Amino acid sequence: MTDGGLFITFEGIDGSGKSTQIRVLAETLRGKGYDVVLTREPGGSDGAEEIRSLVLEGDPDRWSAETEILLFTAARRDHLERTILPALAAGKIVLCDRFADSTRMYQGLSRGDLRETVDHLHRLMIGREPDLTILIDMDPATGLSRAKSRATTEERFEDFGQALQEQMRKGFLGLANEFSDRFRIIDGEQSIDAVASDIADTVLTHLS
Amino acid sequence: MTDGGLFITFEGIDGSGKSTQIRVLAETLRGKGYDVVLTREPGGSDGAEEIRSLVLEGDPDRWSAETEILLFTAARRDHLERTILPALAAGKIVLCDRFADSTRMYQGLSRGDLRETVDHLHRLMIGREPDLTILIDMDPATGLSRAKSRATTEERFEDFGQALQEQMRKGFLGLANEFSDRFRIIDGEQSIDAVASDIADTVLTHLS
Repeated sequence: MTDGGLFITFEGIDGSGKSTQIRVLAETLRGKGYDVVLTREPGGSDGAEEIRSLVLEGDPDRWSAETEILLFTAARRDHLERTILPALAAGKIVLCDRFADSTRMYQGLSRGDLRETVDHLHRLMIGREPDLTILIDMDPATGLSRAKSRATTEERFEDFGQALQEQMRKGFLGLANEFSDRFRIIDGEQSIDAVASDIADTVLTHLS
Repeated sequence: MTDGGLFITFEGIDGSGKSTQIRVLAETLRGKGYDVVLTREPGGSDGAEEIRSLVLEGDPDRWSAETEILLFTAARRDHLERTILPALAAGKIVLCDRFADSTRMYQGLSRGDLRETVDHLHRLMIGREPDLTILIDMDPATGLSRAKSRATTEERFEDFGQALQEQMRKGFLGLANEFSDRFRIIDGEQSIDAVASDIADTVLTHLS
């Protein structure tokens, strides 16, 4: 809590229930009197949302991996300056759906040789790591069946397929091992209420 | 000419006649049988032009200096990959209106403390320096009177004013001193034909 507030990020494969759990945790924390800001990446500020559109719309091959990393880092810098740091300076708790770990994980899958570049750019232009990262871990088959049963199915899930989701799961678990000081792994196979309870316990322990 | 071709950039204050001189040089080189590509920054490729629009349109304060540097580096990476390097690999001469030296110079004026960050990002994500940089040097008063007499006045000129143009001139001369191996200073106070002749001599000497 070096900025006064607390910066918590949520990571996990598609269908792991991040967005639901973020909303539930926000309500729990607000009920205890905390001031909470919900945000997400890529995006999270006006400028970052514009960069998000530039990267994600159009031909998927229009940007090289290197240019895409630069654009995502630009978006993250804007998000950090305009949304995250001001909220932390005001003593708020920031709950962010995906952050730099997602970039590290996706890059590890598609162009593992760029992981060093991603980290280098992060140190140079972002610097700030989360105080706490909640990884909702589950079997991709569970995530897929849950995603399919919802009206708000995340589109990217269908695109990637289960084999790739399995690689993503492994990627996140690898990062949890690498950054074990701030990562907390939550068993996402449980009921939504049980997951919410585990997350609330983890965060309240950190706050106490 | 490590790529097979030759990468020549043009720098100078607004009104220094860069775009005119690039066109004249292109004709001279083509007349001697060289294959020449003309390009410019920011922009120079489809993706880079889109990033250029994102940076230059709208409220000037919408991006911090750091985010702007990341966006310009993303645009430069795209320009390098899609336009400059393929042309060089095909043995062509690339004439580029502004490149990384312009970023260095502008950054030196507005946020001198970021020069190290600019250079760091350049080494990490761009790497390639020009083989030759033509600096058309002139008194800003001359550039201003020439710019005002043209229909195609560059808008930014009016915005910045003569005092700032004087600082830019000094910034470019400082870079010419720092990178003296690739910079050639051309006296832009001469007639257009005399400037063109000096530039052609410089480039043809380099090619011989």
